Amino acid sequence: MTSPITIDLFLIGIGTGNPDHVTVQAAKAIASADLILVPLKGEDKADLAGLRMTICQNCITNPATRIETFDLPNRNPATPAYLDRVNDWHDAIAAIWHERIARHLAAGGGPRIALLVWGDPSLYDSTLRIAARVEHRQPLRLTVIPGITAIQALCAAHAIPLNDLAAPVLITTARNLRTLGWPPDAKTLVVMLDSGGAFDAIDQTGVMIWWGAYLGLPEEILITGLLPDVSAQIITTRSEARARHGWIMDIYLLRRP
Amino acid sequence: MTSPITIDLFLIGIGTGNPDHVTVQAAKAIASADLILVPLKGEDKADLAGLRMTICQNCITNPATRIETFDLPNRNPATPAYLDRVNDWHDAIAAIWHERIARHLAAGGGPRIALLVWGDPSLYDSTLRIAARVEHRQPLRLTVIPGITAIQALCAAHAIPLNDLAAPVLITTARNLRTLGWPPDAKTLVVMLDSGGAFDAIDQTGVMIWWGAYLGLPEEILITGLLPDVSAQIITTRSEARARHGWIMDIYLLRRP
Ligand SMILES: C[S@@+](CC[C@H](N)C(=O)[O-])C[C@H]1O[C@@H](n2cnc3c(N)ncnc32)[C@H](O)[C@@H]1O
Ligand SMILES: C[S@@+](CC[C@H](N)C(=O)[O-])C[C@H]1O[C@@H](n2cnc3c(N)ncnc32)[C@H](O)[C@@H]1O
Repeated sequence: MTSPITIDLFLIGIGTGNPDHVTVQAAKAIASADLILVPLKGEDKADLAGLRMTICQNCITNPATRIETFDLPNRNPATPAYLDRVNDWHDAIAAIWHERIARHLAAGGGPRIALLVWGDPSLYDSTLRIAARVEHRQPLRLTVIPGITAIQALCAAHAIPLNDLAAPVLITTARNLRTLGWPPDAKTLVVMLDSGGAFDAIDQTGVMIWWGAYLGLPEEILITGLLPDVSAQIITTRSEARARHGWIMDIYLLRRP
Repeated sequence: MTSPITIDLFLIGIGTGNPDHVTVQAAKAIASADLILVPLKGEDKADLAGLRMTICQNCITNPATRIETFDLPNRNPATPAYLDRVNDWHDAIAAIWHERIARHLAAGGGPRIALLVWGDPSLYDSTLRIAARVEHRQPLRLTVIPGITAIQALCAAHAIPLNDLAAPVLITTARNLRTLGWPPDAKTLVVMLDSGGAFDAIDQTGVMIWWGAYLGLPEEILITGLLPDVSAQIITTRSEARARHGWIMDIYLLRRP
């Protein structure tokens, strides 16, 4: 299946919910693509697939541009170690990309391939790691196009600075917060990939939280306050919203006095 | 001078050098503004003022939209403490905004005021803090529009992920790196606001650096490698480029093995 043609692979950040997060650079790259691969994710499939299609349709000007969606495979829960499970999963996704690209080229399709990435391709996203795997089988020139992240969407929605004046900020995951606690050197933490309530693992005294779910989407929910005062409200709101929509994406910023 | 009219104040992130970083949301906000305030900074004035004007011109559709540039005041080096100096400076900028807005309204100008912000308004930027000061004198509704940051521009240019798989990232300043050293809990550091060579303050053994200057601009320079191998090259390249252009903006990512 390996093709000798060198493809141009564009990893395009599309922002985090608001179709108007798309940059001019992203719109141009989408417009110039021969094939656009759009991953569909588990629970949020129906809602977010529509959004990705809207973005493609807003940008595409060439009737020859093809859009192909594909289902993301599931991670294998039987693989015991977390990092092994993720690596196997990346291998499986790379195989799907490669197969779709090879089929497209074999049918005479042009060499400009675009992948739409939620938010920015650099932030807690596997696309760059998957592209590196595809490169082993298919010569390619890689272009990364930055996008608005959930962190910026959170700060913009609450109209707050990310950092205290000239101070550091730690970006981390709920898993790290649970296992490592609040690291001593950052007064500000941004927590992503929480499946619910990881802030219960820390000493909440005096901590402020700015929480946001479905940022940029019509369903957007914002809660802010002293963490001890609002943590129960966030947990309830989160689980009700998740039940109602079938999925949720949320992020929060914590600041220590 | 205080006006009873409530203004709509838009803080608009415009990205970090490439005019195509502008989002559709930013372009719409610029297009809908009655008055756009464009700050001009010290050394980079000629180069970046042109870029800001290009962005305005690309977006403006209403001939009645007014653009006003203003010189940022200098910080007073006589004020001894760093934070006092910065706070005084924010007060001085707020006074300029307020005066320009009051004059615009007094002349019958419309209530939609836009401020263009380099990168994203939440990241090491004073605009939100200045807006809070203006709000004491002028009723306003604040809208923040996110923009592509230098961090995303750096990662995109090098085609690298910001984070190691599921790992935390610390965003910090050169000043903090010099005074606090490399904090124990983050393997990845992003360093901003360096006036040159703060990475010399840390143990460089095994550390990788991805460095970028003038990201997104035609002058863009990228250097990557093991820090002990490339640190001298970065320092020389930086000081030559700064001398040639009269100004420099650079950022880097450090990763420990
Ligand atoms: C796999 S990461 C992808 C991040 C993405 N690449 C970015 O730049 O924001 C998914 C996490 O991002 C955050 N996230 C993404 N979109 C979001 C949204 N619209 N609202 C709230 N959180 C969001 C959540 O913390 C979620 O668990
Ligand atoms: C006052 S901060 C403003 C950051 C901006 N708000 C953002 O979102 O990137 C200025 C610092 O941002 C970084 N920076 C901004 N634009 C840059 C560019 N085009 N290339 C390299 N670094 C840049 C540099 O570290 C610089 O010292």
